[in-house]
Amino acid sequence: MAFPEPLERLIRALEKFPGVGARSAERMALHVLRSPREEVAELAMALRDARVETVRCERCGNVSLETLCTICADETRDAGLVCVVEGPREVEKMESAGVYEGTYHVLLEGFSPREGAQPESAAMRRLCDRVAGGTVREVVLATAPDREGEGAAMLVVEALRGMSVQITRLARGLPVGTRLEYLHGEILAEAFRGRRECAADGGPVESGGAPEA
Amino acid sequence: MAFPEPLERLIRALEKFPGVGARSAERMALHVLRSPREEVAELAMALRDARVETVRCERCGNVSLETLCTICADETRDAGLVCVVEGPREVEKMESAGVYEGTYHVLLEGFSPREGAQPESAAMRRLCDRVAGGTVREVVLATAPDREGEGAAMLVVEALRGMSVQITRLARGLPVGTRLEYLHGEILAEAFRGRRECAADGGPVESGGAPEA
Repeated sequence: MAFPEPLERLIRALEKFPGVGARSAERMALHVLRSPREEVAELAMALRDARVETVRCERCGNVSLETLCTICADETRDAGLVCVVEGPREVEKMESAGVYEGTYHVLLEGFSPREGAQPESAAMRRLCDRVAGGTVREVVLATAPDREGEGAAMLVVEALRGMSVQITRLARGLPVGTRLEYLHGEILAEAFRGRRECAADGGPVESGGAPEA
Repeated sequence: MAFPEPLERLIRALEKFPGVGARSAERMALHVLRSPREEVAELAMALRDARVETVRCERCGNVSLETLCTICADETRDAGLVCVVEGPREVEKMESAGVYEGTYHVLLEGFSPREGAQPESAAMRRLCDRVAGGTVREVVLATAPDREGEGAAMLVVEALRGMSVQITRLARGLPVGTRLEYLHGEILAEAFRGRRECAADGGPVESGGAPEA
């Protein structure tokens, strides 16, 4: 015998979430049974609303309520600077860092880079179109410093080859605020390979800003 | 800036699931945005249906579509034998083992024993009532062999103290089908403490069946 049908149906629906296996789906479903009805109704409504009301920005591919997302529509943002990220979460992360005033380009269809991610060819075409449009002077690669991210970055570099745009990537090195003892050796190796000359005050000789083309 | 409002609302709603943190909720929400609308509508419907259509069996506390669950309502099941479990998942597990023909008693309100679980006092009262009713001859403790499960079992034993019913618990020992090298020492220790005399064929001298009271 199995669980009652409505419960089984809910479990099967929850299992479709990435990273949610049979056991988690069961736990989640049983949680639903003991949650207040209003809370469950709220979640059901939120699901439909989020699916129906959001679209992808037709320029950068980020999640948006309008044809253009708030960042692309914001005329104070530097449209000549395009930061290529894997998904909407990376956009949020960059925004919260508070140093970036350019625009974005969201690469991956799935919004979920870690799962069999391939830069969507449509996203890549849109990026080429943006660059071909002539307003973009610099593309900053901000894909993850891992195998998938590096692969995505390489595809972007290839796609933009021969176009007149500067391509940069985020610096690699020691993550600010950690102790060396906790870092993976490869992080240290990369930081060593990328070492920069020190100024008298211990800071880098040339700091900040994109390298000159 | 944050995600668009409908997306933020969905993330907050998903975060209420046990074991779903901010990051998982984000991943799940972004998955919703790229899922077919029908699939999202189906999940929303399944949530409401599961919440509205299921109740707890008024006898055993298991999840049910009727006042009495299918097991309690099944007259071929041995109502004199009551297996005390922590939640509906454990009922399913016992059922799928295919050896048990008695009934159950679901102990925990939360359906989710691993999270701050305390046997629900109402469930405990219902168990005492069932036993006081006189038809129950054996209560089999099938709570988990860990701290929470043992704690729950102790509370049951205490609650039933002085009532005329035999209380047993599932055997502890080597889990059938594993190799010793992979087992935690405590499992071996428990198996050693509970060792039984061997018959000439290597089997236990007395096998199966509940101990005589």
